[in-house]
Amino acid sequence: MIKTCFENVKMKTPLVHNITNYVTVNDVANVLLACGGSPIMADDIDDVEDITSICGGLNINIGTLNKNTIPSMLAAGKKANELGHAVLLDPVGAGASRLRTETAIKLLNEIKFDVIRGNISEIKTLAFGSGSTKGVDADVADAVTEDTLDPAVTFVKKLAGKLGCIIAVTGAIDLVADADTCYVIRNGRPEMGKITGTGCQLSGLMTAYLIANPDNKLEAAATAVILMGVAGEVGFANMESTDGNSTYRNRIIDAIYNMDADKLCSMAKCEIR
Amino acid sequence: MIKTCFENVKMKTPLVHNITNYVTVNDVANVLLACGGSPIMADDIDDVEDITSICGGLNINIGTLNKNTIPSMLAAGKKANELGHAVLLDPVGAGASRLRTETAIKLLNEIKFDVIRGNISEIKTLAFGSGSTKGVDADVADAVTEDTLDPAVTFVKKLAGKLGCIIAVTGAIDLVADADTCYVIRNGRPEMGKITGTGCQLSGLMTAYLIANPDNKLEAAATAVILMGVAGEVGFANMESTDGNSTYRNRIIDAIYNMDADKLCSMAKCEIR
Amino acid sequence: MIKTCFENVKMKTPLVHNITNYVTVNDVANVLLACGGSPIMADDIDDVEDITSICGGLNINIGTLNKNTIPSMLAAGKKANELGHAVLLDPVGAGASRLRTETAIKLLNEIKFDVIRGNISEIKTLAFGSGSTKGVDADVADAVTEDTLDPAVTFVKKLAGKLGCIIAVTGAIDLVADADTCYVIRNGRPEMGKITGTGCQLSGLMTAYLIANPDNKLEAAATAVILMGVAGEVGFANMESTDGNSTYRNRIIDAIYNMDADKLCSMAKCEIR
Repeated sequence: MIKTCFENVKMKTPLVHNITNYVTVNDVANVLLACGGSPIMADDIDDVEDITSICGGLNINIGTLNKNTIPSMLAAGKKANELGHAVLLDPVGAGASRLRTETAIKLLNEIKFDVIRGNISEIKTLAFGSGSTKGVDADVADAVTEDTLDPAVTFVKKLAGKLGCIIAVTGAIDLVADADTCYVIRNGRPEMGKITGTGCQLSGLMTAYLIANPDNKLEAAATAVILMGVAGEVGFANMESTDGNSTYRNRIIDAIYNMDADKLCSMAKCEIR
Repeated sequence: MIKTCFENVKMKTPLVHNITNYVTVNDVANVLLACGGSPIMADDIDDVEDITSICGGLNINIGTLNKNTIPSMLAAGKKANELGHAVLLDPVGAGASRLRTETAIKLLNEIKFDVIRGNISEIKTLAFGSGSTKGVDADVADAVTEDTLDPAVTFVKKLAGKLGCIIAVTGAIDLVADADTCYVIRNGRPEMGKITGTGCQLSGLMTAYLIANPDNKLEAAATAVILMGVAGEVGFANMESTDGNSTYRNRIIDAIYNMDADKLCSMAKCEIR
Repeated sequence: MIKTCFENVKMKTPLVHNITNYVTVNDVANVLLACGGSPIMADDIDDVEDITSICGGLNINIGTLNKNTIPSMLAAGKKANELGHAVLLDPVGAGASRLRTETAIKLLNEIKFDVIRGNISEIKTLAFGSGSTKGVDADVADAVTEDTLDPAVTFVKKLAGKLGCIIAVTGAIDLVADADTCYVIRNGRPEMGKITGTGCQLSGLMTAYLIANPDNKLEAAATAVILMGVAGEVGFANMESTDGNSTYRNRIIDAIYNMDADKLCSMAKCEIR
């Protein structure tokens, strides 16, 4: 499954429309090129429908949310839905401000997403943040660890069922789930948290994987998480003594660029629950 | 010619005003510093005329076009024209959306450009994209290769004559032409296409070259293309086995930073048609 | 003092709200992570008060000033003042355009800053730029060198006294002063000027230092300047023959990531006047 998902991206060069933040946008573009995809960025309300129409999927990231681009996100998302494109939401900072929380929920209400990818805090905000989303089991800790794994898996499956989309929660342990199946992934390095935007990069990457694997979206999303984690391990192994987080950023993207399917499969640490 | 153009940039530290996209803007700034120029970015309508007035030239790039900045592009361009500054257009994505195509044509109609630099698809859109620009020979393929070189050279010369400016088409083979003379440049590496923004970087670089070589703009534009291509070759030669597109990006800018005139001249692959 | 300031940042993980330019924002985020802080970027008027409330301090940088974000800067600054947060102004390009000069002065008039950090030209603009700020000794040269050091020290102390905040002027020699005490810092490398955004990075870093050292803000600001300069020296020492400004950027951030207090103290070149 990993191998097929990986090779489909290399073969199909999926074109990803990104409406994303200006902090990590360059890395998102380079990681998309590294994995075999192709990026386009466009966020003007008069530009997004045309651009999303020539792409295979849409990656919406609210990292530096601006009121000008909220209508662009909605218009692009609706167009992408109409065209049957893959659509992903990265609700950066949901829970940190009212604008972000409310916008994330508005996007959820008006657009059909294939995947929502965030950290546990952002995903919990989407689950419990507004009155109308109560009712999902709230017994989930603030970090996914071996100790909190069982209730976390239950939580993401339930939320996936409720929202009707794949939920990808990334952290020390990553979970990628629909209502029935949860991939538990233990790749990656804690040092990745010292680089800005590894989450944003993963969202871009994952959108490319969804586009190239339309019949296996859950597996595609899990493979993207595995790829990012394995690249974090390979990049870390390539670090020299004077390297720090800035060079690590380059080494991870480089590792994605140089990845092959066999290496990815052999390094994957993934179980199904 | 290459040597003089190169040394003039090093000597004069040309200050370039960039109205550009937020994806590759950091690389544009660093490549300008690498080549011996100096970058300023400003895009607010109340800021651009002052800023462009203290610069030597203006680089307009529509990569993440936003309706707020279209009036800024027009105002800055007109001011730069009034002051006799070098002005370059990079019509990123012209042809991919109506907003981009129409804006590129509007800019062409209202601003006098010294150079338009894009890929063949963008340049063809400017040539054939609107009713009023028909009439230029349409027999040009979608990629400039050895097989399609003759009609491509004819096309860019005609378009340069029609628009009254230098046309720089970059791709596997690069063409830099006015109505009479076309430089055919075979430097560079295909792997450069796996880095976001090498085209944007070249547009910034080229504006610095135009400023520093006001009496030899065609040669200056061609030298900038050669410099970018040679840097791509030098950077590639410096790649280690674990390097990928992210590190390659750094190595190309580094190669520009470390370039000397003799090396540039000796590696240039350039003929005149 | 250096050691304590440095260790407080590592220990407290100060969260910095940045309203900054889109050119160097990624480097600002990575340098904040490298030093032990944590970055958030938010600039929408409906987002900034919430975001600044969960942070410990605010870094305002006018590098790609946009009229939409001026009210955001004012709102965030006032909220940060109300909460007693550290607030820093980086008046990028003050003096280069009317919009930037007037905005910098407006921000100064409406927000209480802990530190203003800029180059000598920007700081002089704030001192002499408008009618109402005349009266400060104008005998200061356009660069801080050994020859112009005495009047420069007098100037920054007087300006600090007049504005009631710390003034940090960075250049060949760096000065960090309040009304009574001026740290004169001779770390750093001239090649740092060939990287875009080392000043912006320093402003981010310095805000983290102010947050983590609320009772020693002058020492904190000076330590941030020393750290940036020492990292410039360490990064330069790590350069290989083919490295240029792009890789140097990474090596400096890496050096901050790998810095320890003893190395920082032993390499600091700092005197008090």
